[in-house]
Parts: sequence; structure tokens; C-alpha cells
Amino acid sequence: MAILAPSRRLRRTPFSEGVEAAGVKAYTVYNHMLLPTVFRSVEEDYHHLKSAVQVWDVAVERQVELRGPDAGRLMQMLTPRDLRRMLPGQCYYVPIVDETGGMLNDPVAVKLSEDRWWISIADSDLLFWVKGLALGYRLDVLVDEPDVSPLAVQGPKADELMARVFGDRVRDVRFFKFDHFDFQGRDLVIARSGYSKQGGFEIYVEGEDLGMPLWNALFEAGKDLDVHAGCPNLIERIEGGLLSFGNDMTDDNTPHECGLGKFCNTHTAIGCVGRDALLRVAKEGPVQQIRALSIEGPAVPGCDRWWPLWSGKKRVGRVSSAAWSPDFKTNVAVGMVRLSHWDDGDEVTVETPDGMRKAVVHEKFWI
Amino acid sequence: MAILAPSRRLRRTPFSEGVEAAGVKAYTVYNHMLLPTVFRSVEEDYHHLKSAVQVWDVAVERQVELRGPDAGRLMQMLTPRDLRRMLPGQCYYVPIVDETGGMLNDPVAVKLSEDRWWISIADSDLLFWVKGLALGYRLDVLVDEPDVSPLAVQGPKADELMARVFGDRVRDVRFFKFDHFDFQGRDLVIARSGYSKQGGFEIYVEGEDLGMPLWNALFEAGKDLDVHAGCPNLIERIEGGLLSFGNDMTDDNTPHECGLGKFCNTHTAIGCVGRDALLRVAKEGPVQQIRALSIEGPAVPGCDRWWPLWSGKKRVGRVSSAAWSPDFKTNVAVGMVRLSHWDDGDEVTVETPDGMRKAVVHEKFWI
Repeated sequence: MAILAPSRRLRRTPFSEGVEAAGVKAYTVYNHMLLPTVFRSVEEDYHHLKSAVQVWDVAVERQVELRGPDAGRLMQMLTPRDLRRMLPGQCYYVPIVDETGGMLNDPVAVKLSEDRWWISIADSDLLFWVKGLALGYRLDVLVDEPDVSPLAVQGPKADELMARVFGDRVRDVRFFKFDHFDFQGRDLVIARSGYSKQGGFEIYVEGEDLGMPLWNALFEAGKDLDVHAGCPNLIERIEGGLLSFGNDMTDDNTPHECGLGKFCNTHTAIGCVGRDALLRVAKEGPVQQIRALSIEGPAVPGCDRWWPLWSGKKRVGRVSSAAWSPDFKTNVAVGMVRLSHWDDGDEVTVETPDGMRKAVVHEKFWI
Repeated sequence: MAILAPSRRLRRTPFSEGVEAAGVKAYTVYNHMLLPTVFRSVEEDYHHLKSAVQVWDVAVERQVELRGPDAGRLMQMLTPRDLRRMLPGQCYYVPIVDETGGMLNDPVAVKLSEDRWWISIADSDLLFWVKGLALGYRLDVLVDEPDVSPLAVQGPKADELMARVFGDRVRDVRFFKFDHFDFQGRDLVIARSGYSKQGGFEIYVEGEDLGMPLWNALFEAGKDLDVHAGCPNLIERIEGGLLSFGNDMTDDNTPHECGLGKFCNTHTAIGCVGRDALLRVAKEGPVQQIRALSIEGPAVPGCDRWWPLWSGKKRVGRVSSAAWSPDFKTNVAVGMVRLSHWDDGDEVTVETPDGMRKAVVHEKFWI
């Protein structure tokens, strides 16, 4: 177990005080910021997430704000997903690609108004890409990272907890929609979204001074709901097929390889960067794709590097995330698999640090 | 002490195997990659660095490669430093700023030829900024991250160790110059540079397969020189006034605030982004600047957030890096100090997690 050396460069969040008091055991670093990964144990956190309600410090989902007359035009340049019918109050999961169609990030776009957007990012400095494009194309838009830190409330009892703090109206917010709510006289954007399949919300906390008051209010209101501090859970997110940029995909991969072809409307998303490359990909189809895999045998070790996938002596892909699933009684994994072996039920061999293991390819995750 | 959770997203390096075998005790994360921070102890590593020779895995200094007819033009767009007299074989420390003059990175530019450059970056995805500009300005240049991982050899015995592996010609490489050397039939760029004041080299290892063979060759050749695995040392780099992007400066700061005004030739660096903003800054001068500070009392705790600087009830700056210096018998620190209190000898108060401490501002670091 390696120690993480503290420094200012690994930024704390508006909720760090609460996270520490809740006994965080491990962190990862994400967008130059601390992201908790374990509170009690990954397995205990997993069972609790599926049965109760957790509050997650996901301030690492930094926002890139676009503001100005060209905000909408720039947003459409950034993604091959067609945004023409998107309305204020909606959130869209949007692959973002470079001119060759390689993934740069897979954020959620939040349309605040016609001329104001937030892009809630995965782990890469997307701000630099957006600023570079805005400057190079001389667009009339301001691009920066505002003082906004998402706090997620996830789990089957999320609606109940949120209603106690924000009123029953929060129950009406539909999936990937958001509305505005008051907390201590301040206006907050709250969306029904989050990096789990257990349901819940993400609160876009605007103003770091509001972080701990909101954290404390949620814990105070949720005592009898067994509310706990939590974090994106490795096992649950693999079961649910939630991809992780940097783990499961990199800028080497197209959205189509990542199973995100359905978010690419390359024929209608006029003006998007990477359109030519993606039209070609859409025509020919990818030669490898992300798949669920179950790995036989006892619990695998932590997956801190790509594990090669073999079929005999032929390399047919790699595993990028893996964990033992207590509910499904198998090792669940995410991998990139070559066309020749990506059909449901195909058998392959995984080269883990503990040796070779048999694995089975699945077209669907555990949902 | 927090644990760092392993994942593929925190990339290993071509030297990780050697780093682990050498008993690394802690890491930080830098450019989505593992950077060792401690081997024996920060203090023991410090004394050893100043007296012997160390091999550092600084693969986190990722390269942004510019290649093509517009490579030189793009490089000059990126920095306010005048590059017109720079020759192939030279390295330049170059502040990189956005259109408002805010720092995006403080890398070393390596001019391989007129149409091919490497930018050896600090901790931010500079690749995204460079790619965005290249695309927006429709430049004829290829921009990507090549398979190049720097390995540093630092310390007073660095010349001796390097000469044993690469021949005596390596002794002739002058400061911030580079030359080409052979290792196992492969051509490697070696520069006299590195993130310490103890002298030494950075080897740009092209091809990850060469990582461990080179690592092993250096350790084999240096046995009688007491060669050890090392890493950028917090104490030594503060004493030497080596700044850390993300710690001591962010995109809120101009190069002039960071004491890097001498690298800004805003009158002659025609075409650089941020020129208008920096001309204004150069005319008026900054209102705050980076300074060395000595903090009184016993060893300070780890500086994982900005520590406010006070003069009475007036906030006059912040400390961003601090450590106890065994050689200078004081806490050495880096801070951003307001104009009113930045003169040599000015006294201020630092708000540390352990309470208020007296501190003295210095115009020079401990070199």
C-alpha cells in the first residue's frame, strides 16, 4: 500500500473536512484534487450504497463554464452528440473528441441557458482544450473553472434524504434533468444524476463556503436513514458498466470503441471537431470494443495496469478495471476486446499479476 | 497518512519496477502518473542527494511533441519568451500563459530541430492547450505525447556516473544544452538539467522497453558511488527556489508574479498568446510576487493547502510550500507576498495548522 504525499497541488475540496471526520481510508487524485475511494472498506461501502444512502464528495468533477453569445456554438464543436434539441434544465452525457476522433473526456454537459453551460468533467484538463479552441476560432465566449463543487447523494434512500433538506419538489426532478433549489438563501442547481446505478442526485455547490454547511445539513437530516460518507464504488460502477476515463478509455480510443456510438450523431452534429474521422469510424465500425468480462477464480488483485487478454497466443484485448463482486459471486471486469472475440459468451484468458485466468465476455454489464 | 488507491488511470512508468524494488515509500500523482516522493526519508534522501548521486524516475515530465512546418511558429505562440535565437541542441525554461497572461505550465522546451520540438511539462494537460491552438489556428503541425520518459541523474557525482555509462563526452554537455548518446544501439537525448540545484542530467528515454535496462545499467555502474533511487526533494527544491506549478503558482498568476518576468520578452516575442495582457503587467509591475520565507520555530507540518500570511489583521499573501531545512536550521518556504511586504527582511505572520508563526521574507532563496 503506497502512501500519498500531501501537497497543495493535490487540492482539497470544500467537503474535505467532512470527509476526514468521516474516516476516509484512501484517496485517488482526479483533476489535481483529492477523491476519496474507501471509507469503511470497498465491500462494506458497496453493500451500504445499495441499501441506504451516501453523501459523496465529488468536487473533483470540476466545471468548465462557457458563457457568452458563442457558448452554444462552442459546445457543439466539442462533441459529436447533436445538441440542437437540448433545452435549459437538461444534462447530456457527451463524448468529447479531438480532430482524429480520440476521446479527450466523457463529461456531462449542463445547459443552464442558451448562452451559459457547465461541462462537468472526468479526469483531464478539458479546460485547456476548450480555451485553446475558443481562442483559435476567435469565439465570443468566456471559458473558465468556476467555484462549483458537486456533492452527490446516492443510494435507494437518496430521494427521502434530499426531500428532507430541499423539500418534496426535489422528488420531481427527472433523470438527467436539473432544477434550482434554495439552501440557506442561496440558489443551487440539483440534477438527478451520479456515478452509480443506485439512483440519486448531484448538487452543484456554488461557493466553497457552502460546502460544510450543506454536508452537515445532509448528515443531520439523514441520521435515521443510516446516511454515511461514501464515494464512487469500484465494484458497483463495474457491475453497472459505468466507464472511467483514463482507466477504461484514453485518447487512443474513439467513442465507438467505448460503446458510446449512440451518443455520436455525426451526420447532424454540424461543426463538431473530429466529424470527418468519426464518419469514417461509423461507416467501417470499430475493430475493438468495451465489454463486460467475468473472470474466474478467487478475488483478483487491484488492477493498476492493463492486463492483456489472450486467445491462445494471440492478443485480443486488455482488462482495465476489475473487482470481486459479492452480489454476483464472480470477478467483474471492464475490458477492450477485439472484434474476433467480443461476442457474448466468447472465452478468453486474462494475464493477471497472479497468473492466467479464464474469462468470459459479456455483451451486457450486471444491470 | 492517507493511502493512495491503485488504478490504471494513475499510470505506472517504464521505471516503476525499479522504483518499487528500491523501496519507494510515498508517491504523488503528476500528469496522471506516479511520481515517487520518498525513498528512505525526506531528510535522508536530502542529505544523500547533496553528497552522492541519485537516479530519479521523472517519467511524469511527459513530452508534448510538435512536428511539422509550423512547429516553430506554434512554439513561439505558446510562450512570451523570445525563441528566435534558440538553436537545436538547446533547452529553454519557458512560461506558458493563456490570453490573459495566466500561467498554464512552466515547462522546458527542447529544440530537436527547426521543425521538431519537445515540451517537457509540469503538472497540467498542456497537450490539450497546444492541440486546441494548433487546430483553431489551422497550423500545419502534428501535436502528440510520444513514448518518451525522462530519467534524471542528480547530485555531485552525476558526471562520474553518467560518464561510466555514456562515455566521457557526456561531461561536455553544458547547462541547458543537450546532445545525442548511444545506449544499447539506441539514440538518446541527454540534457544537463534537472529539478535540483546539485547538478546532473536528464535522459529522455525514447521507448518504454529501454526503461529498466537503462535503470539497471546506472545502478550497476554506480555501486561504488553510493548511487540510490531518489526523487525531487521537497527541502532541497525549496532551498533552491525551484517552483512547483500547482503548488506555488496556478493559472491565476502571471509569470511576473512568479519571478519569471526575465523569461518574458513581450516586446520581441511576436505572436505569443497573452502578449497584450503581459505588456500591461510588464508596464505596471505585479502587486504580489513569489518570495523565499523562513518560518520560525520547530519543523512545520506538511503544507497541503495555502497558509495565509498576515501583517496584523491584514492579509498579505500565502505560503504554498514549506519544510524544515536541516542544513539551514530553519523552516524554508515559498510564498506569494503582497508588494507592501515583499522587501528583504520584512516580517509577517504565517497561519499554519499548528498556529501562528513569525516569518521573515527574503529576496533570495538559500543558494
